[in-house]
Amino acid sequence: MSAPSLDLATLRADYLAGRRDPLQVVEQVLAATAGEDVHHAWISRVPPETLRARARALMARDPATLPLWGVPFAVKDNIDVEGLPTTAGCPAYAYEPARSATVVQRLVDAGALVVGKTNLDQFATGLNGTRSPYGACRNAFDPDFVSGGSSAGSAVSVARGQVSFSLGTDTAGSGRVPAAFNQLVGLKPTRGLLSTRGVLPACQTLDVVSVFALTADDAAAVLAVAQGFDAEDPCSRATQPHGHDIGRAPQPRLGVPRRDQRIWTEPACEAAFDAAIEQARALGAELVELDFEPFYETARLLYEGPWVAERYGAIRDFIERQPEAVFPVTREITLGGKALLAADAYAAQVRLLALRRRCDAVWSQVDAVLTPTAPGHPTIDAMRAEPIVRNSELGVYTNFMNLLDCAAVALPSGWLAGAPGRPGRPFGITVFAPAHQDVPLLRLAARWQAALTGPAATLGATGHPLPTAPVPAPANETPSGQVRVAVCGAHLSGQPLNPQLTSRGARLVAATHTAPVYRLYALPDGKRPGLQRVAEGASPGGATDGTTPRGVAIEVEVWELPATAFGSFVAAIPAPLGIGRTLLADGSEVPGFICEASGLAGARDISAYGGWRAWRASLAG
Amino acid sequence: MSAPSLDLATLRADYLAGRRDPLQVVEQVLAATAGEDVHHAWISRVPPETLRARARALMARDPATLPLWGVPFAVKDNIDVEGLPTTAGCPAYAYEPARSATVVQRLVDAGALVVGKTNLDQFATGLNGTRSPYGACRNAFDPDFVSGGSSAGSAVSVARGQVSFSLGTDTAGSGRVPAAFNQLVGLKPTRGLLSTRGVLPACQTLDVVSVFALTADDAAAVLAVAQGFDAEDPCSRATQPHGHDIGRAPQPRLGVPRRDQRIWTEPACEAAFDAAIEQARALGAELVELDFEPFYETARLLYEGPWVAERYGAIRDFIERQPEAVFPVTREITLGGKALLAADAYAAQVRLLALRRRCDAVWSQVDAVLTPTAPGHPTIDAMRAEPIVRNSELGVYTNFMNLLDCAAVALPSGWLAGAPGRPGRPFGITVFAPAHQDVPLLRLAARWQAALTGPAATLGATGHPLPTAPVPAPANETPSGQVRVAVCGAHLSGQPLNPQLTSRGARLVAATHTAPVYRLYALPDGKRPGLQRVAEGASPGGATDGTTPRGVAIEVEVWELPATAFGSFVAAIPAPLGIGRTLLADGSEVPGFICEASGLAGARDISAYGGWRAWRASLAG
Repeated sequence: MSAPSLDLATLRADYLAGRRDPLQVVEQVLAATAGEDVHHAWISRVPPETLRARARALMARDPATLPLWGVPFAVKDNIDVEGLPTTAGCPAYAYEPARSATVVQRLVDAGALVVGKTNLDQFATGLNGTRSPYGACRNAFDPDFVSGGSSAGSAVSVARGQVSFSLGTDTAGSGRVPAAFNQLVGLKPTRGLLSTRGVLPACQTLDVVSVFALTADDAAAVLAVAQGFDAEDPCSRATQPHGHDIGRAPQPRLGVPRRDQRIWTEPACEAAFDAAIEQARALGAELVELDFEPFYETARLLYEGPWVAERYGAIRDFIERQPEAVFPVTREITLGGKALLAADAYAAQVRLLALRRRCDAVWSQVDAVLTPTAPGHPTIDAMRAEPIVRNSELGVYTNFMNLLDCAAVALPSGWLAGAPGRPGRPFGITVFAPAHQDVPLLRLAARWQAALTGPAATLGATGHPLPTAPVPAPANETPSGQVRVAVCGAHLSGQPLNPQLTSRGARLVAATHTAPVYRLYALPDGKRPGLQRVAEGASPGGATDGTTPRGVAIEVEVWELPATAFGSFVAAIPAPLGIGRTLLADGSEVPGFICEASGLAGARDISAYGGWRAWRASLAG
Repeated sequence: MSAPSLDLATLRADYLAGRRDPLQVVEQVLAATAGEDVHHAWISRVPPETLRARARALMARDPATLPLWGVPFAVKDNIDVEGLPTTAGCPAYAYEPARSATVVQRLVDAGALVVGKTNLDQFATGLNGTRSPYGACRNAFDPDFVSGGSSAGSAVSVARGQVSFSLGTDTAGSGRVPAAFNQLVGLKPTRGLLSTRGVLPACQTLDVVSVFALTADDAAAVLAVAQGFDAEDPCSRATQPHGHDIGRAPQPRLGVPRRDQRIWTEPACEAAFDAAIEQARALGAELVELDFEPFYETARLLYEGPWVAERYGAIRDFIERQPEAVFPVTREITLGGKALLAADAYAAQVRLLALRRRCDAVWSQVDAVLTPTAPGHPTIDAMRAEPIVRNSELGVYTNFMNLLDCAAVALPSGWLAGAPGRPGRPFGITVFAPAHQDVPLLRLAARWQAALTGPAATLGATGHPLPTAPVPAPANETPSGQVRVAVCGAHLSGQPLNPQLTSRGARLVAATHTAPVYRLYALPDGKRPGLQRVAEGASPGGATDGTTPRGVAIEVEVWELPATAFGSFVAAIPAPLGIGRTLLADGSEVPGFICEASGLAGARDISAYGGWRAWRASLAG
C-alpha cells in the first residue's frame, strides 16, 4: 500500500518533525479500514467523528510529553474499552464496560488512539481465528489460510497497516501464533506484568495481555507504557530487574529443540527453521540442542489437563443459561471443562511443579530458547474440517509458556513459497526465557529483525521496509539489576578468587585498563594488589620515596553480576581492600577495587609491570 | 515422672558427659511406653530388641559427629518408616513402605532413633485427635479432653516424656493445635523446607512436615537436621536466608488480632491471651493491633473452599473401592471433595491471591504476628457430639497459615485452671511470619519460653523444668542473608543520605565508635567525610603536615540490611569513598566506609570533633 508506514519509529519521527499530524493519521486509518472488512478483522470501531475529535484534542498537547502521542491501536474484543461493547466474539454475551481495562487506559493516557475492537476465536478459545460468528478471520498474506488466533483481528489489523500496534491476550499461544502467520512481532509478556483488570478471563491464573507490533522496538515502546503493577488485578506482579541482557550479549547461548524431536505439520517449515538456526549462528549465537520432551509434556498438560475448567468457570453462568449462543466448537470445548474435578486440578498443579523443575534445568545451559512458533500453517478449510485436532497442533511450541512462567517473543524469520498461483506466507520463530526477561528478549528480537532479508524484512503485509531510525528508548527503561565491577588482582580470570565472581553469576564484559592515573602495589601478603589513585601533587600514602610518581594504566577486567549478589561479594572483602570507583581507560567510571592507604605500609610498587598478572608471571619466571 | 528429662539439651549434655548412654535411654523409653496405651498415642512400635540393637550400633559411633546421636523420636503414622506399616490411621489402607521418608532418613542418619508410629485423625483430616479407629487420642494433662490433631499421638508421646521429639504433619493446624493442648513447641516450618517425599498427602500443595519438641531450641536443632532440598519432592524448596532476625531484636514488632475480632469458644482463653500480650510487652515487644478479617477469610477458604478435593484426590482409589473402611466422619468430609469442580479450584486460587495481597500488607507494619493457637479446648465428648462444627472452630487461628506461605511456631503460654476436681490444661499461643523466618521465630520462641513461670514453665506434661543449659547451636545454622555496614557521615541517622539505608530495609543495630586508629576528614565538597586509618609510622596521604597524627575513635553507626540490597547501595557510592572494613571500638570488624587517599587533597582534618555530626553542629553554631 502507498500510505506511509505506521510503525512507531517512522510515525514518531514524522510527528516530531512536523511531517504528519494525528488528524492526518486518523484519516489514513479511516481510509485503510473503509469498505468491506473481507478479512473479518474487526468487531466494532470508534466512530470516525469521535476518532477525529480525539486526534484534535491530542494536537493541543505536547507530543514530547506523551510517548504514544497520536499512535493508533486496536484492541482484542475481550479487553474492555469504554464506549465500545465487549463481545468476546459472542454477540449474546456482549456488555458495555463502565471503564477501560487498566492496560488500555495506560496506553490512552500516553497519547495512543483506540481505533476499535478486533475479532477473535470466541472467548479466546482457539489458536486459529476461525471460531467466530463475526466470520473466520483471514490471513493478511493469503486469505485462504487461517489468520491464527485467538487474537486474530489484532494481528491482521496491524499486518495490513490499519493500526500501529494492537493488544491481544495469550494463554496458550494466542499472542504468538497469529504473529507468526502475519509476519509480526508478538510479545507475550511475563505473566502479571500487564494488568488483566478489565480483561475477560480465559484461564485467569495463566492469561496475559500481549502486544502485536511491526518491529521489536515498537513492542518494547508499547511494553514500557503498558506494564505496571495494578492493585486491582490479583495476578498482577511488579516489574523486576531482568538480569543478564541476552539482547546485548555478543554470543547469546540459545537452546533449540533436539532435531529428532522437532514437530512439523507442514514440511517446508523444517527448512525454514534450519535457516533460522543459521541466522542465529550468523548473529554470533552459540546453539545448544535440548531435550524438549518436558516442554511438550507441559504443553499437553495445558490442553489435555484440567485448565479448560478455568475457561468454563469464567463464563459458567452464561454458557449454562444460553448454551446455544456459544459457537459450536467453543461450546463443546468449554463444556468439557464442566466435568473436571477439583481433585484433578490439584493433581495437575503438582505434576506441573515436577515438570517445571525439569524444564527450568535448561537455564543453566542457555540464556534463551529458540523454537518455531508453529509447526505449520493450515488453510481455513483444513481447520474447519477438523477444528479440534488442527487447533491442538498449532500449540505444540506455545502451550507450555505461561505454565512455565516464561516470557516470549514471536518474530518473523523466513518465507514459505506459495503453491503455484498462490502468494507465499511468512514463517515465524519464537525466543523465550524466564520471567522478567521481556526487555532483553525484545532487544535480541530487534537484532534478529535487523538481520532479516527478503520478504521477511518487510513490515507485516504492508510491504514497507524495516525503519532505519530507531524508536527512542523508553524513558522508564526496565532496570537490568546488574552491576559492573572492575577487578585488578586475585579476582581476574584464571586467578584464585575468580570463582567468587563466577559462582555469583558474573560474566566478563571487558578486559581493559584503567585510566593512567593509578599505581599498583603488591600487598605484603603477596596474594593481593592494592590499586592506588595518584593524587595531584601528593605522593600516595605508604609509598613515600620523596617523589610524586606518575600515574599509569593498569590492567583490569570489568565483570557484570546481579546487584543482589554483589552485596555478599563486597561484604567478604578483607581489609585493606574495598570497593570504590575505578576510572577506566575510556573515561567511564565503574565500581572497582580500592585500597586504604594505611594498608600499603611495606607494599611494593609493581606499577611498572602494568598489572597483577604480569607481576605474578615475573615471579614464576 | 521420675525418669530424667529427654529434652535435647539435657540429653545431649548427659551423653557428652557420659552420664547416660543410648541403651539406657532406650530402656527408659521402653519403660515409659510399656503397659496399656490409655492415651491411644501409638499405632505401631519398633520391637524392643531392634531398638536395643540400634542403640548398641550407635554406641560404636562418635556422638560428636552425630547431632541427634541416641535421641528417641516418634513419627506420625502418615509418614513412611522402613520396617513399620504406614496406616494413616486406617488399618485397611496400610502398606509396608520400601524405604523411609526423606525427612525420617535425614534424622536417622544424624543418629536419632525411631521409637514408633503415632495415632492421628485418619488421613490427617481433623484437628482434634478423636477420628481414629485406634481410639480417640487423649490429652496428656486431662484425659477427658481432646489431644488435638491430626498429629495427636506425636504430641502426646512427647508431652508424656516417651520420646524427645516427634514428627507430625500440618496442613491446616495439625502441627500446632496438638502442641497447644499438650504444652509443647510445635514448629510448622515454611512450606517445602522439609521434604514430603514418603509422606501420604492430605493437600499436597499445602502439606508440611512439622516438629513437636519440648523446647524451641530442641525444635531448632531438629529443623537444622531435617530441612533440605529434595529433588524427589516436587514441592521442595531450598532454604533461603531469613533476613531480619526478630528473635534477636530488642523490640520485636508484633501484630495481634484486633481485640473486637478475637474469637473464643472457651472464655478463660481470653484472659490467658491478655496475659500473653503482657508477657510480650515485658519482653520488649511493640504490639500492633491488626485487622484480622483477611486472615479469617483465608482460613474459611481452606475449609469451606475446594481444597478438600485434594484430600479426596489423595486417596481416591481407596475410598471409592472401600468406602466402608474409612472412619465415618472422615469419609463424609473426604467424599465431600469428590463433587468439587476444577473450575472452583481455579477460582479459589485467584481469590487466594487477592486475599494474600491484603494479608501480606501487615508485614510492612510488624515482623511477626502473635495469636492464640486455638480459641478453646473441647472435651472428647463435646467433639463427638458435633464432630464437624467443633473441629472447624479449632482452626480459626491456624487454617490460613500454609495458604499464605507463612512459617509458624506454636508454644506454651499460660494455664487454664481445671474445674473442681479436674486437672488444669495449658494455653498456647502462636507466632508467625513470612516464609523462611523459621529460625528467627524459634529464637523468639526460646526467649518466650525462658520468660514463662508457673505450670507453663514445665516441659510438656513431664513436670520437668526448662533446661538451663542451651542446646548447642546447629552446625549448619541458617544464614540470615543480612550484612552490617558502619557509616560515619551523611548516612548516619537523620543525615541526608540515611534514606539510602532505610529504603533498603536497613535497621540501626548499634551507635558506637571506631577503634582509636582513625582520622576523619571533611572532603572538599563539604558534604561527606573521609575516614582514614592511621598507618603505623606513616602520615595519611593528603594530610601531610609533617607529623604522624595519632589515631582517634570516631563516631559511627552500624546498620544491618539484606545482602541482596547491599550491592546496589555500594554501587552507588561516588569516589573517593567506598566500602572496605571498619575496625570498631569493641575490636570487631565490619564492612564500612573507607576513602581513597587521593581524595583527601584539600580535605580538612576534623578528627578533633570526634565525628561528622559534631563537626556539622559546630558549623551550624
